[in-house]
Amino acid sequence: MSQIRRVAILAEGSFSLFGAKTAVGVLRYSRHETVAVIDSQHAGKTVGDVLPFGGGIPIVASVAEALNYKPEVLLIGIAPTGGQLPPSFRHAILMGIENGLDIWSGLHYFLSDDEELVKEAARCGVHLWDVRKPRPGLVVGSGKALSAQAYVILTIGTDCNVGKMTAALELRNALAKHGLKPAFVATGQTGILIEGDGTPLDAVPGDFMAGEVERLVMRCDAEGADVILVEGQGSILHPGFGPVTLALMLGSMPDAYILCSVPSRTTYRPDHVIPIPPVRDVIRLYEDFMAVSYKAPKVQGVALNTSELSEDEAKQTIIHYEEDLKLPVCDPIRTGVSPLVERLIPLIVAKRQQSDK
Amino acid sequence: MSQIRRVAILAEGSFSLFGAKTAVGVLRYSRHETVAVIDSQHAGKTVGDVLPFGGGIPIVASVAEALNYKPEVLLIGIAPTGGQLPPSFRHAILMGIENGLDIWSGLHYFLSDDEELVKEAARCGVHLWDVRKPRPGLVVGSGKALSAQAYVILTIGTDCNVGKMTAALELRNALAKHGLKPAFVATGQTGILIEGDGTPLDAVPGDFMAGEVERLVMRCDAEGADVILVEGQGSILHPGFGPVTLALMLGSMPDAYILCSVPSRTTYRPDHVIPIPPVRDVIRLYEDFMAVSYKAPKVQGVALNTSELSEDEAKQTIIHYEEDLKLPVCDPIRTGVSPLVERLIPLIVAKRQQSDK
Repeated sequence: MSQIRRVAILAEGSFSLFGAKTAVGVLRYSRHETVAVIDSQHAGKTVGDVLPFGGGIPIVASVAEALNYKPEVLLIGIAPTGGQLPPSFRHAILMGIENGLDIWSGLHYFLSDDEELVKEAARCGVHLWDVRKPRPGLVVGSGKALSAQAYVILTIGTDCNVGKMTAALELRNALAKHGLKPAFVATGQTGILIEGDGTPLDAVPGDFMAGEVERLVMRCDAEGADVILVEGQGSILHPGFGPVTLALMLGSMPDAYILCSVPSRTTYRPDHVIPIPPVRDVIRLYEDFMAVSYKAPKVQGVALNTSELSEDEAKQTIIHYEEDLKLPVCDPIRTGVSPLVERLIPLIVAKRQQSDK
Repeated sequence: MSQIRRVAILAEGSFSLFGAKTAVGVLRYSRHETVAVIDSQHAGKTVGDVLPFGGGIPIVASVAEALNYKPEVLLIGIAPTGGQLPPSFRHAILMGIENGLDIWSGLHYFLSDDEELVKEAARCGVHLWDVRKPRPGLVVGSGKALSAQAYVILTIGTDCNVGKMTAALELRNALAKHGLKPAFVATGQTGILIEGDGTPLDAVPGDFMAGEVERLVMRCDAEGADVILVEGQGSILHPGFGPVTLALMLGSMPDAYILCSVPSRTTYRPDHVIPIPPVRDVIRLYEDFMAVSYKAPKVQGVALNTSELSEDEAKQTIIHYEEDLKLPVCDPIRTGVSPLVERLIPLIVAKRQQSDK
């Protein structure tokens, strides 16, 4: 596991709970220490003034001001429209480089392909990390994760964008509080920026996706994790993202699934055309598929994103799902993951005891 | 559909039935006209002297000699070890460029990223086509192939490298002889070089694989094909290539499958570790998976690659599969695809009549 770094987050013009998904995710879950957020709109406030968490972390107007808080890393927490690098971003990044900061970027535009930035980074001895850029030397998956000694949990979904990363990270935090050694395998850009490691699965060529997941799972296993939480993507029958989901299943060879869903959603994002099948059918498909050849992972719990519902509707929905599926159900943000943790701990401990034999 | 081109195939040092898979595939199946094969080992012979087909196509010693046969395209039909471009390849390619030939390359090394070759190609007005390089502007799949009016057949497999391209191409040829208008969607480098079009699915980032297949299927549909044969890849439970297979299923939304298999094979290539499930389980999985949400494609026939068996063993194996699966079974090369064609024609015609209504 890499060391804890001091991070300044660039979120210029968009820092809010729903406006800066990456910045909010990093603030909420990162192992690294955020020392300042950069957004001139909110300069002078603290993160706690703008978000329901984050306390006294200062918000400042510029990279220059953020330097007062001695960051080691400048993390680009927003995306420009287009895909090119606007002058304001270039200026901020150069300011970071010249002051000795590593740059972590989730942009589609690769900093490490930009001659000026590469030259400056080399001159200043800092590292440019494009988290969306697959590493060189990819390999084809070969089912190695079948031999993991840790208990492997994959968060799966009825659709993309339903809370799979959040469920995995909340479970990681809760399981750590119970004295376990959890690891998190990040597979999307926000997850990677949170963890400081991972694979940008949506950008990896098809032949190598499962191999990338397998590599990360086996590394966590070798490092002595007793439970590995793998960040899911897409949904197995999603007409565009299904293959990425299958890569996660075959690459991680999970012992268990946690199913994530937005109860009010009836069609797949982003097209809103093809209907999502009933949740029971989705569960059966995920379970039966792997059981043909590999382990037989069961859905051990459900994490709902009820943010579109009222407090009362959310409560009723959770009860309804519990009764219907006979599974522990929660909203990780609204009600916490305790019901899932209770179900999972004995399973994790049982596998550890078996592996120790 | 693109026009027929005159092609010279570079196969220096490796032209034989099993030594030059791409060259042999192009000679056997391409719509384009091979005017010469370049391999100094066999110079002076004809293709028919070396392969069981190919007739009087001349084999020559060099690109310079091949020019006598007025090619328009130089097709690189062999791969160097390594991944870099050896001087002998560079010399041959430059000779082609300088004589006005387009270059079609299945190499991992991208000619279109090589400054010298790009400059020469521009000067000489020829096109460098790296078939392994995904096109720009990829999109996410959205289930559009559900609306195809043509009958869509996907060749699937119990493993990678079992004859999915061959089965699709033999079916295309046989269906055309029956007066149908078949189209072929190429998804691997040899298939693309044969067809002169397609998508290098193994190199496409995971998010866009299904979208690429969908685009090609819908283009064939718009061009008036009444049956579309999609070249399969991998196998749905293969620990590395499963995601590519699923992309083909979701991208093509098939009306039918043809299952391809090497009967003697018991573990997945290339690792020979994980066992291939019984063929009945594989068929059930492919069929049930799509039926949850989309069309309910059935396996309508089986194409075996019996090249490792004696004539008698092959015959017995085919009979055994027929009786066991109650499906038409053949070896496309050894016994021909007639049993599959007989089964498929009424299904293709029925969908056309339905679409015409």
